[in-house]
Amino acid sequence: MSAENRRFLLAARPVGLPKAGDWKFDTCARPEPGEGQLLVKVLHISLDPAMRGWMNDGKSYLPPVGLGEVMRAGAVGRVLASKNPAFAVGEHVVGMFGVQEYALSDGKGIAKVDPERAPLPTYLSALGMTGMTAYFGLLDVGQPKPGETVVVSGAAGAVGSLVGQIAKLKGCRVVGIAGGAEKCRYLTDELGFDAAIDYKAEDVRAALRRHCPRGIDVFFDNVGGDILDAALSQIAMRARIVICGAISQYNNTTPIKGPSNYLALLVNRARMEGMIVFDYAPRYGEAAVELAGWLAAGKLKSREDVVAGLETFPQTLLKLFKGENAGKLVLKVADS
Amino acid sequence: MSAENRRFLLAARPVGLPKAGDWKFDTCARPEPGEGQLLVKVLHISLDPAMRGWMNDGKSYLPPVGLGEVMRAGAVGRVLASKNPAFAVGEHVVGMFGVQEYALSDGKGIAKVDPERAPLPTYLSALGMTGMTAYFGLLDVGQPKPGETVVVSGAAGAVGSLVGQIAKLKGCRVVGIAGGAEKCRYLTDELGFDAAIDYKAEDVRAALRRHCPRGIDVFFDNVGGDILDAALSQIAMRARIVICGAISQYNNTTPIKGPSNYLALLVNRARMEGMIVFDYAPRYGEAAVELAGWLAAGKLKSREDVVAGLETFPQTLLKLFKGENAGKLVLKVADS
Repeated sequence: MSAENRRFLLAARPVGLPKAGDWKFDTCARPEPGEGQLLVKVLHISLDPAMRGWMNDGKSYLPPVGLGEVMRAGAVGRVLASKNPAFAVGEHVVGMFGVQEYALSDGKGIAKVDPERAPLPTYLSALGMTGMTAYFGLLDVGQPKPGETVVVSGAAGAVGSLVGQIAKLKGCRVVGIAGGAEKCRYLTDELGFDAAIDYKAEDVRAALRRHCPRGIDVFFDNVGGDILDAALSQIAMRARIVICGAISQYNNTTPIKGPSNYLALLVNRARMEGMIVFDYAPRYGEAAVELAGWLAAGKLKSREDVVAGLETFPQTLLKLFKGENAGKLVLKVADS
Repeated sequence: MSAENRRFLLAARPVGLPKAGDWKFDTCARPEPGEGQLLVKVLHISLDPAMRGWMNDGKSYLPPVGLGEVMRAGAVGRVLASKNPAFAVGEHVVGMFGVQEYALSDGKGIAKVDPERAPLPTYLSALGMTGMTAYFGLLDVGQPKPGETVVVSGAAGAVGSLVGQIAKLKGCRVVGIAGGAEKCRYLTDELGFDAAIDYKAEDVRAALRRHCPRGIDVFFDNVGGDILDAALSQIAMRARIVICGAISQYNNTTPIKGPSNYLALLVNRARMEGMIVFDYAPRYGEAAVELAGWLAAGKLKSREDVVAGLETFPQTLLKLFKGENAGKLVLKVADS
């Protein structure tokens, strides 16, 4: 067991796509837990588009990561030492442990997970924040009704692929928008989407007209930009647009492209609403029960794209912004 | 009594600001009511920003006005002849009678009004579609709670001035955005707004920060463009943005400017929702009772800017887009 802790500290506020120099890969002494604390050995780290936003200065739903601070990240790990009576050595936990090998915690905001019930990366994916985002964003904000048409962008991504599958389980017709034939094939052939639109090869607006002849009732947006505008051009009366993210805009060096077609909200008496998963913390349990049930019954597929090696973090994160990940992107730090 | 009917027919689809040549000022024989019909002498015509949208081709919440058709407009008039048992000669009615001196109606979608209870132009203003728009847009879509901060753009306009006053009556703190010192003075000194921002003279974003230190809970938008973006920059958690109109964008010859700050919806878990007053037709009565009560009690002021002369229609309509109207713009066609 190493007496050192390797970690990524934020070193600069990125302009455009983050580059390796925006972090400092640092080595320090492994910390020891104080009274009430536990020491977690980080095993798998969740890589998410939202991390780009956390690197920016300025007010948001969470404070920015400070320069010199460990890069914020959700992760799953194993309790290595504990002076907190609620956590025992050897238990597995999930929490915001950061991009590092070892993390101290006071136990607040972390949860135990059972590696016998699901592989550990699944607790960052379908059974983690990703699953919670898909579940509450779709069902609570989007409020789809059976028979309605649900369209999701970033559909082959971690959140999008769950959103589409949950919408199918709730009796909706589901159309996914993704980049590339292989992702589209995955959506229709493996996840059971009714249709998929390859935004790299097709006119998205025309394809939405074709696949959603009665209009889009729920649009779950992970992408923003031109795809949001294309969806707005085809919304149905009283449509609900869930703003979960805008990955196409996070690395802009010019102002964000707002939706030119936003007056479609007026014409169609529709609404566009943002969501932040952390608001649903009191209800995570309810979602976890349903998601775990679907997983166990084989009705929901959770796919993780696991890349090994803490030191690969900067370039691995970029896979998200290049659309190179297949499912939930996870950085594997250690086996156990 | 003239045997002729003068009227404005749509002659062209405008590009940018409408010009006189986009209509044909036409004279035809005054029609006679057939079985079930009534003939209305038009007295006052409602001039509204929405008329600009009705002149465009393409799908919207109402079909476009066809080329060669009478320009669509709400109006109040007097029944001149009737072969419809529900309407008697001499009664006053409000409906979509168009920009003309005489209109035929089958009685559907029109309502009787009482000139003893309120001046006729008020039935196009606080007691008409304008009042209904303000009432349901604010209360039903915006859902303000006492103590919350409501901001309204186009605040000295027909809808905006009512929205602000209704919000005050419901116990909110109200900030109006309008163009020019005189309009701003009117809002604070005569209508009781808590503050007014002159967008022609002030940095709207900075002024909103100053006047809404705890953020904007409800933003009622009649304007769009940069003002919508400024408001988004200052919304509070769970804010509601009512999209009623976007007068700054209606005469664009370039694509509409979408709100660059729309991700404020995500950060603040806020929603943006469009409304069309016609959806509330089954509830007009409920609003009319409350609005009439406030008017009678002197708690609500309805101001009409009445311009005489049907033939002035093209240039009078432009007052709306130049911000030259003081309150509800009404075209007076005849005295009685």
